[in-house]
Amino acid sequence: MRTQVAIIGAGPSGLLLGQLLQRAGIDNVIVERHSAEHVLGRIRAGVLEQVTVDVLDAAGVGQRMHAEGLVHEGFDLLFQGQRHRIDLKHLTGGKTVLVYGQTEVTRDLMAARRASGLRTIYEAADVAIHDFDGPQPCVTYTQDGQSHRLQADYIAGCDGFHGVCRASVPRSAITEYEKVYPFGWLGLLSDTPPVHHELIYVNSPRGFALCSMRSRTRSRYYLQVPLSHTVEQWSDQAFWDELRRRLDPAAADTLVTGPALEKSIAPLRSFVSEPMRFGRLLLAGDAAHIVPPTGAKGLNLAASDVRFLADALIEHYHERSDAGLNAYSQRCLQRIWRAERFSWWFTHLMHRFPQQDAIAEKLQEAELDYLVHSEAGARTLAENYVGLPLDFGAPRGQAAPPAPAAALLAR
Amino acid sequence: MRTQVAIIGAGPSGLLLGQLLQRAGIDNVIVERHSAEHVLGRIRAGVLEQVTVDVLDAAGVGQRMHAEGLVHEGFDLLFQGQRHRIDLKHLTGGKTVLVYGQTEVTRDLMAARRASGLRTIYEAADVAIHDFDGPQPCVTYTQDGQSHRLQADYIAGCDGFHGVCRASVPRSAITEYEKVYPFGWLGLLSDTPPVHHELIYVNSPRGFALCSMRSRTRSRYYLQVPLSHTVEQWSDQAFWDELRRRLDPAAADTLVTGPALEKSIAPLRSFVSEPMRFGRLLLAGDAAHIVPPTGAKGLNLAASDVRFLADALIEHYHERSDAGLNAYSQRCLQRIWRAERFSWWFTHLMHRFPQQDAIAEKLQEAELDYLVHSEAGARTLAENYVGLPLDFGAPRGQAAPPAPAAALLAR
Repeated sequence: MRTQVAIIGAGPSGLLLGQLLQRAGIDNVIVERHSAEHVLGRIRAGVLEQVTVDVLDAAGVGQRMHAEGLVHEGFDLLFQGQRHRIDLKHLTGGKTVLVYGQTEVTRDLMAARRASGLRTIYEAADVAIHDFDGPQPCVTYTQDGQSHRLQADYIAGCDGFHGVCRASVPRSAITEYEKVYPFGWLGLLSDTPPVHHELIYVNSPRGFALCSMRSRTRSRYYLQVPLSHTVEQWSDQAFWDELRRRLDPAAADTLVTGPALEKSIAPLRSFVSEPMRFGRLLLAGDAAHIVPPTGAKGLNLAASDVRFLADALIEHYHERSDAGLNAYSQRCLQRIWRAERFSWWFTHLMHRFPQQDAIAEKLQEAELDYLVHSEAGARTLAENYVGLPLDFGAPRGQAAPPAPAAALLAR
Repeated sequence: MRTQVAIIGAGPSGLLLGQLLQRAGIDNVIVERHSAEHVLGRIRAGVLEQVTVDVLDAAGVGQRMHAEGLVHEGFDLLFQGQRHRIDLKHLTGGKTVLVYGQTEVTRDLMAARRASGLRTIYEAADVAIHDFDGPQPCVTYTQDGQSHRLQADYIAGCDGFHGVCRASVPRSAITEYEKVYPFGWLGLLSDTPPVHHELIYVNSPRGFALCSMRSRTRSRYYLQVPLSHTVEQWSDQAFWDELRRRLDPAAADTLVTGPALEKSIAPLRSFVSEPMRFGRLLLAGDAAHIVPPTGAKGLNLAASDVRFLADALIEHYHERSDAGLNAYSQRCLQRIWRAERFSWWFTHLMHRFPQQDAIAEKLQEAELDYLVHSEAGARTLAENYVGLPLDFGAPRGQAAPPAPAAALLAR
């Protein structure tokens, strides 16, 4: 079998890349080791930046997102018992975020891929990638006991943190940066109306909490818990009781509880692997970097990687120029480190750390207090939360950023 | 002997308070354990916020400061080999700082005090304070072998971090917050023209450096050094060589070196003691709090404490109201914690920490990169550097901040 781009991983990154390439007439095959149901079963974040909304629109999968997604113009910060609204729209000159679950994004992308007729190989075992440092890379896998071989011009590694792509790169060619946080997020999904029409980020003496949502009838709540905790020791009742204790009285009184549809503990990690291109292998999304979930940058970063990658491949096939491919790693990493910094900072601001001494707590409170009282401070939070512009920090006089995928596709 | 306000400590805080009170017709005596020469021999910071300039003007000691001080409209941040200017004036809507050495401020205040005829007792031994929890506090000390007793309405503790005032408060009445940093600043003063007309704050792989100045012909430079180092192991030549290595080539080439007039290593500490009032004892400046020197907030915080304290005492004597005295501690501490947060943050941003791992370095670089490319980010640095307004963060609808000392004095 032969294709132009072999995509490893059928999560949102791989599916989105496939869709953008397909619309530009570039053939691609996705190889995924899990089933479609397994991929859809992953509960992830649900706050989309405008940059992500734009690229989903460019991929032609924005219809349901715009119909069902909730536009959020702000969120609340709760600390020292008081809620303070961060007015994203006002602080960023009109920008907002869209609340629409990653699961729904994946579902929309899957439907579009089915309609496109392009091949997706689910439940591929023993996936391996070969010869990406030469001109003829290929992917091998087994399915139903049969060995298969997929030849491609390029391999896109969209297979996540634990995937085979980054692991196939020689250690000497890669530099990894990592920080693991000393706590986890216990998440609970329930079919209950959200406690507030916007998100509430909570710094309480009992630890961080987040009141989020997937729709007007489905809530997603999180509690900071020690890494030693297991889901089994948290009954639904215990979860709701603890959440109430971390909220202000008005929110605690309003909270509607119900049975958990899903409950899980996720660790928090900052991770970056450099570079993101190795010959004809290009990594995107979680395969190359992880952010802690505070600030919801994970899916958004993956979307901007994919946008840069699709632009680069389209430029390669349509314009016979490798400039985009050559710039791919650096272009992504600049944006990634900015998002890593924001996610690390926002995580530090909102969580209580083990061994955090008294002065560290006071300084944390002083920082929160400064943020909500300084317009410049609030703007630093808001402009990162809605997502920095794709051309953020470009020196003046430099060439304009590459045309958006949508513009290229419309040619 | 009797006075209205007994001031312990003849550093800039005590002298400034004495001057403000004297101009409002309030009698005061300063008791200082060192000689005037010793006090003047301390080399300290030299960057004055507008709030500090205003209170020195209100004290009638601004003449030479305005004639000789250098107005700075910005400073440079140097990292990854590149200098980036922080345009304070543009970013803060017109605010600037004044470079004028603390030694000169002290000298001007000493001259004004001599002219006022008020008493300053230098070289007072065995200074002790008594009965400040009752209506009749007093100060005792010995001089020339004689015991003395000074009765007062109030005692102002302006005697610094190691002074007797805070140490006289029962431990149970006080909460202390402290952080000691794992490095020191090696400072060198020389009669050489500054390497640049504005300050340069340097984050280099070899550690922090600061190019500061006292005048157009007197420079003050600092190097981050391990706490284990001693001044003796740093020859002038070694200092200049190391400074050059931390600068960009243009600055290193321009650097004019010369013999050190003074060279010393200062530790870096964040410290706050709460509250700042104990009956008729009121602490101000370093007696209650210390900031690391990055950002030059020490003298400026002392000046705003003294401004609040003078206003409160003037209100007490002139208007028979203790509202200002009752609010003193809280009013100071709100401003202090904001400056502590800024100084802590700026210290973390600019220094290399022992055991700082690779990802921490990358995040530090990403934060510097964000700051110089985001207007909001740069504004958070600038607005703190020039000094937050005295009424910063006052809830809307709250009473206006107290009239400045100058206005009270003019009544």
